[in-house]
Amino acid sequence: MLSKRLNRLVYLLSRLPGVGEKTAQRYALFLLTASPELAGELGTEIATLHEKVKFCTRCGHLADLPEFTEHDSEILCDICLDHERDPRLLCVVARVHDLMAMERSRTMKGRYFVLGKLLSPLDGILPSDLPLQKLRELVVSEGVEELILATPPSVDGEATALLIKRELTDLPLTLSRIASGVPHGGDLEFADPITLGRALDYRQKL
Amino acid sequence: MLSKRLNRLVYLLSRLPGVGEKTAQRYALFLLTASPELAGELGTEIATLHEKVKFCTRCGHLADLPEFTEHDSEILCDICLDHERDPRLLCVVARVHDLMAMERSRTMKGRYFVLGKLLSPLDGILPSDLPLQKLRELVVSEGVEELILATPPSVDGEATALLIKRELTDLPLTLSRIASGVPHGGDLEFADPITLGRALDYRQKL
Repeated sequence: MLSKRLNRLVYLLSRLPGVGEKTAQRYALFLLTASPELAGELGTEIATLHEKVKFCTRCGHLADLPEFTEHDSEILCDICLDHERDPRLLCVVARVHDLMAMERSRTMKGRYFVLGKLLSPLDGILPSDLPLQKLRELVVSEGVEELILATPPSVDGEATALLIKRELTDLPLTLSRIASGVPHGGDLEFADPITLGRALDYRQKL
Repeated sequence: MLSKRLNRLVYLLSRLPGVGEKTAQRYALFLLTASPELAGELGTEIATLHEKVKFCTRCGHLADLPEFTEHDSEILCDICLDHERDPRLLCVVARVHDLMAMERSRTMKGRYFVLGKLLSPLDGILPSDLPLQKLRELVVSEGVEELILATPPSVDGEATALLIKRELTDLPLTLSRIASGVPHGGDLEFADPITLGRALDYRQKL
């Protein structure tokens, strides 16, 4: 019903998360009827994305490729370059999305380390697949004093946190885990039993 | 919080209809973590969209630019090129979206004419802004016998249909208007009074 090229574009757009065929069609027609400049710039940005945006060699967060850079030189993200950050505090997260969520809370004063994946033996992700050696080197070289394990409170997230605890147990390090409990503004009635159980287990003295 | 280039990409993606900052961020991170081939192809398709997809010179539907084409030559869409279509039946729609919706119903055996806009004096769209002369020429040259006015049943859509009726009144042409009434599967309880009024006015003999 659409032209062959538009059909191809709709197929590619429908690969985006949460986008079905109808939404993809809507996006494609919008791009075609909106200004050619928008389609041109958006297309170029997407096409060159992988060339221009890299992962921070230190923490794994996203970082722009600098204009002038030597081959294989270090690329650092804005957070690692920020000297106001406390180097003694390191927060371990699973994904860049989680790092961004933590940053939105504006409570984390230290730096991050993005694992990229979680331990999941059933999916074939074993301890050797996690960048634990890199984490160890970073902890030692930067003089980290507290490691906050902010992997998600899921089976894989808990297993990963326990693995990191076991692997780094010989280092003079305070290890902590983010709290799990009833969300702010949440209703006890609608909280699931495991969350409520944890909220009770990890209760704090007033 | 994101790299400058990603922020730019998020801004551009959030210009898509119904996409807010969070969804745009999700798309951008997906494109960065998915295969570079996907981002490369999607980006190129979007960037070259306006070059490669044109509007059919006859009816205004979308049409791929042929591989080999002379400058300023006619570009025809798949529907206009389809000789199975009845040339005596022409359906006038406001937008390409409407044409596609009509096609999905698989009831239209003729061809289309896309106006591109509706009469809307308050928005500065006057009769002279509509391609009425082109429509008249097409009706005459193709020997159209019935013109189906499928502009939407809104104030602007009705006004446009009436305008077309008045403009083409001298031609030997049957003019018809798509029916307005309670949608299939719809509940009378939830239909608005105007729709119900029309359903009653345009009742059909059994």
